[in-house]
Amino acid sequence: MLSIIYLVAITAEAMTGALSAGRRHMDLFGVIIIACVTALGGGTLRDVVLGHYPVGWVANPKYLLITVIAALVTVLLAPVMHHFKRAFLVLDALGLVAFSLIGCAIARDMQLSPLICMISGMMTGVFGGVLRDVLCNEIPLVFQKELYAVVSLLTAGAYWLLLECAVAPNFSIFACLMGGFSLRMVAIYKGWEIPKFIYKD
Amino acid sequence: MLSIIYLVAITAEAMTGALSAGRRHMDLFGVIIIACVTALGGGTLRDVVLGHYPVGWVANPKYLLITVIAALVTVLLAPVMHHFKRAFLVLDALGLVAFSLIGCAIARDMQLSPLICMISGMMTGVFGGVLRDVLCNEIPLVFQKELYAVVSLLTAGAYWLLLECAVAPNFSIFACLMGGFSLRMVAIYKGWEIPKFIYKD
Amino acid sequence: MLSIIYLVAITAEAMTGALSAGRRHMDLFGVIIIACVTALGGGTLRDVVLGHYPVGWVANPKYLLITVIAALVTVLLAPVMHHFKRAFLVLDALGLVAFSLIGCAIARDMQLSPLICMISGMMTGVFGGVLRDVLCNEIPLVFQKELYAVVSLLTAGAYWLLLECAVAPNFSIFACLMGGFSLRMVAIYKGWEIPKFIYKD
Repeated sequence: MLSIIYLVAITAEAMTGALSAGRRHMDLFGVIIIACVTALGGGTLRDVVLGHYPVGWVANPKYLLITVIAALVTVLLAPVMHHFKRAFLVLDALGLVAFSLIGCAIARDMQLSPLICMISGMMTGVFGGVLRDVLCNEIPLVFQKELYAVVSLLTAGAYWLLLECAVAPNFSIFACLMGGFSLRMVAIYKGWEIPKFIYKD
Repeated sequence: MLSIIYLVAITAEAMTGALSAGRRHMDLFGVIIIACVTALGGGTLRDVVLGHYPVGWVANPKYLLITVIAALVTVLLAPVMHHFKRAFLVLDALGLVAFSLIGCAIARDMQLSPLICMISGMMTGVFGGVLRDVLCNEIPLVFQKELYAVVSLLTAGAYWLLLECAVAPNFSIFACLMGGFSLRMVAIYKGWEIPKFIYKD
Repeated sequence: MLSIIYLVAITAEAMTGALSAGRRHMDLFGVIIIACVTALGGGTLRDVVLGHYPVGWVANPKYLLITVIAALVTVLLAPVMHHFKRAFLVLDALGLVAFSLIGCAIARDMQLSPLICMISGMMTGVFGGVLRDVLCNEIPLVFQKELYAVVSLLTAGAYWLLLECAVAPNFSIFACLMGGFSLRMVAIYKGWEIPKFIYKD
């Protein structure tokens, strides 16, 4: 189940990346790179920081191909993309939660501490978008708005806890997917944010 | 001694990172990430580039916790922070020098060449701030102003030389800390800079 | 032959990096870092992502020294640099192609799949410039203009194919250097670009 949702997730993230690139009038190469960085950059950063080699898409280049195809399809479908804004929010939320579970599982397999497992989930879920914004020359959106990274941290933490309590893996995945997804959806609907820090010299 | 100064250093760096995030009106998640990147990003980059796994904070998550706490304390103390500007300059200088020694020591333990030991010290000392500026969407300050990176390179170089000459490790650390710290303080006081390169097409 | 062209390539890339830094009025430290990132950053990113340790310039610090010297010479020669614009385009094209072949060869030696070999060549050839633009706070040029990365991908792909067909390595290198270089030169002369994707919300 998680691997199907992973495919949905990288496709959705690649599409949002391609749209970001289109907003900055990039050429097709830029579109593909931004799509790949958005979809696969979080997992790549996680693998590099944890020393978890080979990096996911290096071992399985098919993920890279899916991302490239998703980017090109986005360019073709651009004129009708605005009809799918809500669908994107749903797919992106599903992706965030799936990425968080995968990142947490990888760190846990490496027998890292619970805090690092949560960070690993959050890096996987959130830093693709951070790298996208850096390459598009913007302050990362996720540092300024919305309950996004917190959903990722909580989902990863809950997953770690359930596995630690020897809850069946499949049930743990299902419960965390539902819980994290619902939390993200409610956060969007209610406009939940965490407090801002405003500092002037 | 170096490990106590290291704790002071990551605390000071985390606080400057949190203030940078506050200047850009980030939310608490952004504040924490920028603080962590400022305090731990230089060492992380060093470990990843040298292939020195596990990365420091992955092996010792307590450093991550200290950084997070320092960031949150900074938010609470923000209204009185401007009283501590001078203290920050002193702590930051101490941090720069301590980071440089640690980075140099790690590369030397890996039996890398003296030039790489100096670069390793400089990456540790300087690149946390570079990554902070990149995430805050600014040209890194350290590329434009002040005698900062040069202090780091000289400190690391002197430390390598003293160890190579079989000077007692504790004395070497003490001498380089004092020397590097003094040089940085004098550079701030006198406004020393290295020449700028101004090029027009 | 490839290693001589590699030296020419890092020199040329270091010089373009130094000029970029000069356009942003950086100091000498910034100039040297931007030069090193431009010349060696693509290969560093490739090695870190592939887990190919030690990273090139860590194992051979002489490449770092050459880059630093090239940066300083650029500063000295800045007043006459505009006379060499055409020479730079030629050297940069040669560098792009040489980097692409080297990156492809390293991935192939690691027995990675052909797609990853092409990506490895492209990362080596193109991402030094991407990192330079990120540190100079600009949207990477290569995502917006010119037939540049495509030349890199095609060169790396052709090289992989020739080696796979058991063509003599020296002939393969020569043929790909000539082919990639010619393609890049024609692309500059004819102003070839790949299509842009322009998206408005």
